[in-house]
Amino acid sequence: MDPTAHPTPPATLSGDDASVLPPPGVPVSAVGEFGLIRRLSRSLSQSPAVTVGPGDDAAEVEVSGARVLVATDVLVEGRHFRRDWSTAADIGHRAAAQSLSDLNAMGGVATAVTVGLATPAEVDARWVLELAGGIAEECALVGASVVGGDLTRSDAVVVSVTAVGSAGGAVLLRSGARSGQVVAVRGRLGWAAAGLAVLGRGFRSPRAVVEAYRRPEVPYAAGAEALVLGATAAVDVSDGLLADLGHVAEASGVAVDLDADAFVAAEPVAAVGAALGLDPLALMLTGGDDHALVATFPADAELPAAWTVVGTVAASGEDGPGVTVGGRPWEGERGYQHF
Amino acid sequence: MDPTAHPTPPATLSGDDASVLPPPGVPVSAVGEFGLIRRLSRSLSQSPAVTVGPGDDAAEVEVSGARVLVATDVLVEGRHFRRDWSTAADIGHRAAAQSLSDLNAMGGVATAVTVGLATPAEVDARWVLELAGGIAEECALVGASVVGGDLTRSDAVVVSVTAVGSAGGAVLLRSGARSGQVVAVRGRLGWAAAGLAVLGRGFRSPRAVVEAYRRPEVPYAAGAEALVLGATAAVDVSDGLLADLGHVAEASGVAVDLDADAFVAAEPVAAVGAALGLDPLALMLTGGDDHALVATFPADAELPAAWTVVGTVAASGEDGPGVTVGGRPWEGERGYQHF
Repeated sequence: MDPTAHPTPPATLSGDDASVLPPPGVPVSAVGEFGLIRRLSRSLSQSPAVTVGPGDDAAEVEVSGARVLVATDVLVEGRHFRRDWSTAADIGHRAAAQSLSDLNAMGGVATAVTVGLATPAEVDARWVLELAGGIAEECALVGASVVGGDLTRSDAVVVSVTAVGSAGGAVLLRSGARSGQVVAVRGRLGWAAAGLAVLGRGFRSPRAVVEAYRRPEVPYAAGAEALVLGATAAVDVSDGLLADLGHVAEASGVAVDLDADAFVAAEPVAAVGAALGLDPLALMLTGGDDHALVATFPADAELPAAWTVVGTVAASGEDGPGVTVGGRPWEGERGYQHF
Repeated sequence: MDPTAHPTPPATLSGDDASVLPPPGVPVSAVGEFGLIRRLSRSLSQSPAVTVGPGDDAAEVEVSGARVLVATDVLVEGRHFRRDWSTAADIGHRAAAQSLSDLNAMGGVATAVTVGLATPAEVDARWVLELAGGIAEECALVGASVVGGDLTRSDAVVVSVTAVGSAGGAVLLRSGARSGQVVAVRGRLGWAAAGLAVLGRGFRSPRAVVEAYRRPEVPYAAGAEALVLGATAAVDVSDGLLADLGHVAEASGVAVDLDADAFVAAEPVAAVGAALGLDPLALMLTGGDDHALVATFPADAELPAAWTVVGTVAASGEDGPGVTVGGRPWEGERGYQHF
């Protein structure tokens, strides 16, 4: 499968009543990743040791008296990466970044990761060792170690990375955004999407965006910084700003409106837009994989220059919680669909 | 692929020098799971927060001042399970049991698990929810919760379960076995292998062994109990007693000799052996997936009846560390090969 293809949004079940089992014969693709996760989150009971359960960027669990964050992400060959577009080390960096970024979005930091790797038997052993090296290098950026995992055979490469780490004094949830607050972003938007668009058309430049796709530059300090700055909610941009901010809007029961003028495309993203006939704003609003951090803050928060205020939070109106751009629904794809 | 097939043991690289990269072009299958893991373990540097790194049943990491155990295991459709042989709930039980058992083998207990699930889009959504239900039910046996994960699309089902939990006062490593000690087992041996043999021949009975294959009965209290009883090393039997005890022998630098007469096949295992012309002793020594706990104890340890002494530990001789049966190398397959 072609990772450049954004499939059409899947049909959802009517009523979307996540409290009941779907009727037999309804495929995963019709319920969708988030429909299934909603159902799973409601069906799974949690012990008192679980202080943050399913549905946020990471879970928080009390283990031996300490608050431990844990998050798992999976990359699938052909779906999330291609071995001819990225080196093994690149894929390792991306796989680790996904999970490390989840802990960042909670305001925490990873201590260790484990790796579940399924791979065809004919894959070069060096490829596996270089993949592990890439994971370890990305982990080293936050001081985390690769402490174990499992290795088994499959028809396509599947990499599952679990990050375990410590929360700061508090955790940043998706549910804390309130009317009157502002939305701010730290990190890149649209870079990886521009890189993917370039690769999908058979090009290898501009190099900056291709590199950004291969190895995201994650603002790993941003979560802890956001906590200090008084953030009330956060999410990392893995599927696209509109999609991920949509989770915050839904979890918080608020309406988020983004200011299109606040999004200034970086030069290489603008260049890709011009060369390929893509709207740079669309790349920034719907492109995933850069793992920028988006957070909500009280309106009077004093944010350093690394943060860009891009929108405001209001009470949800007639249409319920959601994200608009300039007061209107975004026309087009909102972000990456996993099914 | 047929999960009943035990492929021939893979060739290993000459000299097996795990400190260097294999030459280009050597496939994963030629290095083998354990050859790769040895190389990975040596190549990955560990921060001071890591108190037990790669190479044991679980890793131990200090997070926010607490000692946290973490282990990941992966099940692949066609390799480790078939959707026509097991229900989704069965597969969930097995997937969770693998990782929970790893923490048991360290003398600890899981608090939470995360699940990385890759599945074809056409799989019934109910199947996924029932899989998650099976994982949650198995976790409930030790009081653990399913706290999160990731769900994505792939061509075959891949389930990766990570267990996070607390260590007891100490951890049970593979490296603590010493000459003069005894080897004892708690839990089933050969049941799941007998069930797999039955299923592989198109039968569905004896029901007891088929059920044992589908949902292992893991002695989850055995790790903590072994610690109290003075155990010096432990491993859970996931690939087969000879294979897993081989890791203990290697990590401890000892020779383990098993007493064939100590292995009394349970009635349904003996029945399968008789019906299918299989040696019940071979099923018990090389069958995996029951997740019995095998541990070494001082010779004078007083073990409750649930434990069966099956062998002794001696200094490793000319042939180096290893496991023998009645003083001789075991002829035949030693356990499950992942490549």
